[in-house]
Amino acid sequence: MIQKVDHIGIAVHSIEKSLSFYTEVLKLRLIRIEEVKTQHVKVAFLDGGETKLELLEPTSSESAISKFIGKYGQGIHHIALSVHSIEDRIRELQEKGITMIDSQPRKGASNTDIAFIHPKSSDNVLFEICEKKGMEHGEEGYV
Amino acid sequence: MIQKVDHIGIAVHSIEKSLSFYTEVLKLRLIRIEEVKTQHVKVAFLDGGETKLELLEPTSSESAISKFIGKYGQGIHHIALSVHSIEDRIRELQEKGITMIDSQPRKGASNTDIAFIHPKSSDNVLFEICEKKGMEHGEEGYV
Repeated sequence: MIQKVDHIGIAVHSIEKSLSFYTEVLKLRLIRIEEVKTQHVKVAFLDGGETKLELLEPTSSESAISKFIGKYGQGIHHIALSVHSIEDRIRELQEKGITMIDSQPRKGASNTDIAFIHPKSSDNVLFEICEKKGMEHGEEGYV
Repeated sequence: MIQKVDHIGIAVHSIEKSLSFYTEVLKLRLIRIEEVKTQHVKVAFLDGGETKLELLEPTSSESAISKFIGKYGQGIHHIALSVHSIEDRIRELQEKGITMIDSQPRKGASNTDIAFIHPKSSDNVLFEICEKKGMEHGEEGYV
């Protein structure tokens, strides 16, 4: 079902303030920063090998990330797993009795379709499944 | 400084109870289960590609995982980053003003030396750096 751990989402107040720890201390390469307006977040992807780190900064109080930070503070938000045929995977998960936050895929960052598993089905870990819909600048395979 | 995201540590009450979600629902391969007596934890490694998932079950109330679960409940505990020459990396981090939980490496699971960065230096994310000291059964390269 799972291809790999695609990325780890980390909730931060400010990408600008947090970024130097990742790029200057850990020396991870910044792949890109983009805004996902539908999710009310700005995201920064950092190259951690096969698994990227994704800093998530809320751009409005409506953002799920804003609510998360309000409740728990900054910190690790979710683990994203790459899949093929995301609609089939959602159905498969539901057939196994898993509760989905998203029963239909929605648009994520970097031209992906994403769906979240409800953490009550996964011992309080927020898992995202994601399917890449194309290549982006800075990505492996980009030409 | 960083080779890759080696694993994501997830605190659980019971590996036995949590494991079926990972192996039967997500269909991740169980690499192995082992006990790390010095850390008072039992750990299960799951194959997520380059980045493994590490379920951490406390074996005593002295365990940091037991305290974590008592405070926050089950959930994502830390992100582990592979490094070479861990002593040099600890010194380098300290020279950059980063506070280490471990200023000397200690023994982790699967024949690794590990050290934790204090989350106050990383916006509340608990990062481990780890260095592999040999190959284990089920690992890439094992013969």
